[in-house]
Amino acid sequence: MPEQTTSGPEVHQPVQVRPIGYVVTDYARPQDAPPQATENYRDTGRVVVYDQFAGGLSGLENCPHIWLLTWLHSQGEDEASALTCVPRGLAMTGEHRGVFSTRSPNRPSRLGMSLVRVVDIVGNVIHFHGVDLVNGTPVLDIKPWVRSTDIPPDLAG
Amino acid sequence: MPEQTTSGPEVHQPVQVRPIGYVVTDYARPQDAPPQATENYRDTGRVVVYDQFAGGLSGLENCPHIWLLTWLHSQGEDEASALTCVPRGLAMTGEHRGVFSTRSPNRPSRLGMSLVRVVDIVGNVIHFHGVDLVNGTPVLDIKPWVRSTDIPPDLAG
Repeated sequence: MPEQTTSGPEVHQPVQVRPIGYVVTDYARPQDAPPQATENYRDTGRVVVYDQFAGGLSGLENCPHIWLLTWLHSQGEDEASALTCVPRGLAMTGEHRGVFSTRSPNRPSRLGMSLVRVVDIVGNVIHFHGVDLVNGTPVLDIKPWVRSTDIPPDLAG
Repeated sequence: MPEQTTSGPEVHQPVQVRPIGYVVTDYARPQDAPPQATENYRDTGRVVVYDQFAGGLSGLENCPHIWLLTWLHSQGEDEASALTCVPRGLAMTGEHRGVFSTRSPNRPSRLGMSLVRVVDIVGNVIHFHGVDLVNGTPVLDIKPWVRSTDIPPDLAG
């Protein structure tokens, strides 16, 4: 590998992302929320999309599953700045892993990905199954789940 | 549904997300880059992780596929602010859809999700297959692809 692999642009300044809405759930505290949306499809939540972004929802009625890209606002600064954590699967041994090899909500970006099932869309409110988010969590983006894009081609069978 | 479904917190201020690195690819312009990483596993790119975040990479050698959450910096302000677009599949008819029902890179958040295959990790550089990103795109987060989290349970079979 040439030496320049690790050179490149200066460290980028923080980028600004404007929330397009927020979620309404029954969970007030991170420690009470289930760890993954796909493990909790019994539970129902809502996304309230701000009026000025509601025009982006057309066609979503044809998307049975969607990604909610969120800002995990309730993670503390200390939790977000740690670069290692003990993943759930290693809780017995207490082994640490780098955060980028885990789905821990404690990560520098504070970005969350929740895969939920759309139940109904009423105006600018999306009702969904699959809750792992704290009430009031800002939603930064919504994308449809697409099989060809979201399963590795070498595992798609 | 109670009336308060659409009430709630004020519109959130933009959140700040600090890039943890950037990608190196052969594509200088958005119009030249393939539309989806999973459609271009023949092509190789690199993620250069800034030194101060390299500690978050431990364990990633056990993750064959990873998500790159990126900031699509080369999308213009006009492109990013439009709430509808013509999806690739509708190019023949020119029909518009809301951006949240498409995977278009032109979206208010400018957030991208690329599912790539890890080839090698050398220090703070991840070599991967599956390129849909323009050279220099900031990387905001890296997460392992996990079958139970990233396939809807009702479609997992």
